[in-house]
Amino acid sequence: MESAMPESTAAYQPTPRTVPTRARERAAYDRELVHGILDEAYVCHLGFVRDGAPVVLPTLYGRVDERLYVHGSTGSRPLRMTSADGGGGAGTESADDEAGTGLAVCLTVTHVDGLVLARSAFHHSINYRSVVVHGIARQVTDPAERRTALDAIVDHVVPGRSHDSRPANARELPATAVIRLDLDEVSAKVRTGGPNDDPEDMTLPHWAGVVPLTRGYGMPVPSDDLDPAIALPDYLSVL
Amino acid sequence: MESAMPESTAAYQPTPRTVPTRARERAAYDRELVHGILDEAYVCHLGFVRDGAPVVLPTLYGRVDERLYVHGSTGSRPLRMTSADGGGGAGTESADDEAGTGLAVCLTVTHVDGLVLARSAFHHSINYRSVVVHGIARQVTDPAERRTALDAIVDHVVPGRSHDSRPANARELPATAVIRLDLDEVSAKVRTGGPNDDPEDMTLPHWAGVVPLTRGYGMPVPSDDLDPAIALPDYLSVL
Repeated sequence: MESAMPESTAAYQPTPRTVPTRARERAAYDRELVHGILDEAYVCHLGFVRDGAPVVLPTLYGRVDERLYVHGSTGSRPLRMTSADGGGGAGTESADDEAGTGLAVCLTVTHVDGLVLARSAFHHSINYRSVVVHGIARQVTDPAERRTALDAIVDHVVPGRSHDSRPANARELPATAVIRLDLDEVSAKVRTGGPNDDPEDMTLPHWAGVVPLTRGYGMPVPSDDLDPAIALPDYLSVL
Repeated sequence: MESAMPESTAAYQPTPRTVPTRARERAAYDRELVHGILDEAYVCHLGFVRDGAPVVLPTLYGRVDERLYVHGSTGSRPLRMTSADGGGGAGTESADDEAGTGLAVCLTVTHVDGLVLARSAFHHSINYRSVVVHGIARQVTDPAERRTALDAIVDHVVPGRSHDSRPANARELPATAVIRLDLDEVSAKVRTGGPNDDPEDMTLPHWAGVVPLTRGYGMPVPSDDLDPAIALPDYLSVL
């Protein structure tokens, strides 16, 4: 359904599971907003079902247009579960196609932007931006797409870095599993602004407002064994 | 099994699903380490199973000793799924006891501490600290425990804040569901230090090292409608 839409559509199509039951005014489907939230984070939280129970693991990822990529050892649990040779237990939603057996996943990314202090305990909150992606993750077997995906994961950590490191070699490539999750069933949720206190609480003697959270970078720490002649690259000095 | 252990035991007992298949040397079960990671984060990622598929949502939480608490509207999906009057779909692992029907969850908290740049793309990584908790979440019905949990969630955002805000009233309390997850099946995973490049890569001309990530607080922003006579409380000035 969604995959038949042109990628130039400005927004993802809401589905029953991407429309929240509460705080609907915070839900958003704009592709640019979603891409920005995804690109700014370092880890996602990847959920899948194993033996009928949920598992949520933090992992690196990369984005190429409307596709997310996650990589890992071919021996790791979620990646084995996407492989065609089995490993998927109860609760996995499998589908065979040219890309192999799929694994039902939910991939979530969250930024915490501020602490929201209301006069009432009930209205305390945080300002945040999150993206939730539902879908079937599939192993990538095409060599060219695997290289693109691995570059994207490295460049997600530090933009431009894939061109300044040794690419995966013939020993590393077969040991690395790459899985793909298409951005089809996607929603963002964003809270901004101050507390939403009830009118009758406005005269209470408690401080109310927002404490912004900031994120930054410390000074890069070279490896002890780094050749001192190798200067800090530009893509790090601009962080 | 685990629940029969005295809480003073210094470490959580590993179980099959808390022993990683890879990087076992990064896994840890020390309670103090786990508590520290949990207490430092603002949101967890809560995973559960709905209609056989995984769902991962960011949410606030609080900790009281060996119990985690999550709250939400009684109308929200995961909280409805823990209630005794149903709502739990396929894939939920239910168990009836005095605390009501349970929901199988996986609650994960992650801090990203640094970007690890290796000479090889393959060995790029991040320094991180994460905690994964598996278990059955149950609704809390005892009024005293509910108050304790709600205070803990507010104090998790800003320590000491629960004493400087209006407690939940007779209208808000019935609208708020509180669920509890005991810290029994728990593991931490920690990566620190520089890149682990292969010996044959040491002479490559690429910068290698760690870019630390930092987190801080911006200046608190009072609500527009805050009485100017209300000064910034001490618990915010020390952030």
